Amino acid sequence: MDWYELSRRLHRRYEGKIEVLPKVPAFTREHFAIWYTPGVAGPAEDNARDPEQSFHNTWRWNTVAVVSDGTRVLGLGSIGPEGALPVMEGKALIFKALGGVDAVPLVHRARDPEKFLELLRLLEPSFGGVNLEDIESPKCFYLLDEARKRLEIPVWHDDQQGTATVTLAGLINAAKLTGRDLRRMKIVLVGAGAANIALYRLLRAYGVPPENIVVLDSKGILHSRRPDIEALRERNPWKYRIAVETDGGWHGPRDGGIPEALEGADAVVAASRPGPGVIKKEWIRRMNKDPIVFAEANPVPEIWPWEAREAGARIVATGRSDFPNQVNNSLAFPSIFRGVLDVRAKTITDEMAIAAAEELARFAEERGLREDYIIPSMEEWEVFPRVAAAAAAKAVEQGIARYPLSYEEELERAKRIIRATLEKMRLLYRSGLIEALPEEVEAAIRGASRARE
Amino acid sequence: MDWYELSRRLHRRYEGKIEVLPKVPAFTREHFAIWYTPGVAGPAEDNARDPEQSFHNTWRWNTVAVVSDGTRVLGLGSIGPEGALPVMEGKALIFKALGGVDAVPLVHRARDPEKFLELLRLLEPSFGGVNLEDIESPKCFYLLDEARKRLEIPVWHDDQQGTATVTLAGLINAAKLTGRDLRRMKIVLVGAGAANIALYRLLRAYGVPPENIVVLDSKGILHSRRPDIEALRERNPWKYRIAVETDGGWHGPRDGGIPEALEGADAVVAASRPGPGVIKKEWIRRMNKDPIVFAEANPVPEIWPWEAREAGARIVATGRSDFPNQVNNSLAFPSIFRGVLDVRAKTITDEMAIAAAEELARFAEERGLREDYIIPSMEEWEVFPRVAAAAAAKAVEQGIARYPLSYEEELERAKRIIRATLEKMRLLYRSGLIEALPEEVEAAIRGASRARE
Repeated sequence: MDWYELSRRLHRRYEGKIEVLPKVPAFTREHFAIWYTPGVAGPAEDNARDPEQSFHNTWRWNTVAVVSDGTRVLGLGSIGPEGALPVMEGKALIFKALGGVDAVPLVHRARDPEKFLELLRLLEPSFGGVNLEDIESPKCFYLLDEARKRLEIPVWHDDQQGTATVTLAGLINAAKLTGRDLRRMKIVLVGAGAANIALYRLLRAYGVPPENIVVLDSKGILHSRRPDIEALRERNPWKYRIAVETDGGWHGPRDGGIPEALEGADAVVAASRPGPGVIKKEWIRRMNKDPIVFAEANPVPEIWPWEAREAGARIVATGRSDFPNQVNNSLAFPSIFRGVLDVRAKTITDEMAIAAAEELARFAEERGLREDYIIPSMEEWEVFPRVAAAAAAKAVEQGIARYPLSYEEELERAKRIIRATLEKMRLLYRSGLIEALPEEVEAAIRGASRARE
Repeated sequence: MDWYELSRRLHRRYEGKIEVLPKVPAFTREHFAIWYTPGVAGPAEDNARDPEQSFHNTWRWNTVAVVSDGTRVLGLGSIGPEGALPVMEGKALIFKALGGVDAVPLVHRARDPEKFLELLRLLEPSFGGVNLEDIESPKCFYLLDEARKRLEIPVWHDDQQGTATVTLAGLINAAKLTGRDLRRMKIVLVGAGAANIALYRLLRAYGVPPENIVVLDSKGILHSRRPDIEALRERNPWKYRIAVETDGGWHGPRDGGIPEALEGADAVVAASRPGPGVIKKEWIRRMNKDPIVFAEANPVPEIWPWEAREAGARIVATGRSDFPNQVNNSLAFPSIFRGVLDVRAKTITDEMAIAAAEELARFAEERGLREDYIIPSMEEWEVFPRVAAAAAAKAVEQGIARYPLSYEEELERAKRIIRATLEKMRLLYRSGLIEALPEEVEAAIRGASRARE
């Protein structure tokens, strides 16, 4: 299946993937007198008195900006805001379809980080949250840290927090299935970009000690005596901190590449560059018994799943939807934002991300863990309200929610909101107002789907 | 009917008026593989090579940002971005319901005009057009002029161009109905804010000579010898130009207020401050036979319609939906943008606005002009595709359309697009997925509607 060509063709056919629709009766001039002038002066005045009201009388409470400068789009690099637009629009589609969240794709030309931050601050009154996306590293770390300080609405960088959350969920279940304790596992992170730097932070918050973690960048193992350590401190303090904290993990401060790092490891999480061949079969063989291999590069994983298994990997996960165990951000961002928006959390803490990861893991566990099922699939609808409820409940527990809801209350609310979107989509689809894909495309898709089973 | 209270209550009940919905099938993981990764890398790459493609493979071609800094919202003054949000969201609702245009409310904190312009430039790649709204004068003139220069997508300031377009339509028919030639009519403009400064420009472009127009600001008739004329040149060059060009119109450069200005006038268009009593009955009596009175202030017109008629006014128009002859921007902006987006016009010229006004006037004329029907109502659905076609055809004629369509072609296209939205809204409403208004509200509304008839 040539997804690129098919996608090109269908993107041009549908001319966009989302639209804005009224969600109120808007048929007569009296309706418009309520929703626009003269009536709208009422809620406008309310908000002038108390800007907080904008979360109650507009769509703001449920609306997230999906923001990118287009400097690191998918595996394509810095392709600019127009290049990023189809991706951000896709993200907005998923936000609504899986989380019931109204999301607006905003691609822009603010390359300078201060300009980027200023843009977010200026637009803050329009939105209930911000999802950052596809931004070059290390700028993305600075942007996230600063935006979280400067804005009063929650800010999330999905390439950091989203990927890390779903990876953690997978690791929790991979540990369980291989009879390990994640907090004692030896873990190698290949690649020190957005995803793995965030995963490192989550693993630490989860309770994994730094000596159990080895992180590599393109120059090899991070440790305190690397010749470039002072340059790192300047250029990328996030990576620097990891180098000092882990100091080469159980290997200690010694130079080496992936094969050296994998010596004695239980798990490897690669989020580096498209393979195959970035990780070799013979290197997997150096790992401990029943090794766990997450090869998350897109479009081609660092090692093909069958190669990893041939080399003895017990559990393999990738970023792709056509292999089992997809590490798929869509399992996290729509539902985490669902929960966060519903309780009006001021921020999204690492503890909330961990709660979401644990709920994802629990969901898969309840359905029965297998080597090829450690993470739920995005077609398992029931998982989303649960992740929303877990994130929301944690925010309440941490005292950062303005509208406290219990797990059960948010579970019901999230179910209702997400189901309503699904019903609308289905109704429009059945009535032909969402045009079906061409029959031969659906047939090819069914074929691909059967091949996957 | 207390529209403010009703609107407050219903805004809180519905928690927003618009939502984002998928317009493509998005049910299976294969669908997501087309709309998001891995497929979306295809169109993203296309856009990296040719940013113009973003108008074909995303929603950009049909998407307008509704932008306000909240410095002059309705009659409420500078109430801030949160105050403006319900209004901009209402505008977005109308954009879609009447024009099939996807519009995104963007309220922001950029009070400084250069910052405001920079914000628009940075966000340009996300949108197909910009609708400015509720911005203080004279900043709004500078913003519009500059934004039109700096951006390659069409920029419209509805409080200027929208109001002027619909007012011109009304004046064309008022002239016709009273047996006058608009180009020879003596016209007084009360108020020199956004609406009347733009109307002045449109009237001039329509062929009305400057000596037939008298413009007043809060200090009286504008003319070249006013004591503040040099200050005006500095502070508000747009008003200054009018003072010099009209030089008091047929009265010549003499001081005076509204009563003096109305002496010998055929028509008055007031867009100044809420009345009643801004224009007095006895002043209307000084006008020529069969006077035409447009009193457009909201929520209360400068003179009540019945007072104007008692004073001899033959035709009266206001900004309110509960009186006949509503000068209603909604007749213009959704459909003008429909046409402009469909032919990918680079800008919206005064000639296009005039073509739209003439089409609006023609539509009403075909249905039979009466003193209480010189402008179509927003419930006359058929008018919108026609205005779209008129604006589009003029853009093509002027050579500023990237995708030339004939009047008939755009008429069909606009009908199809606007009808599709209406069908979606109706289907969702009938199925209960757009919740009906509470029964007692609908009853009260029906009462108000009957009272109007």
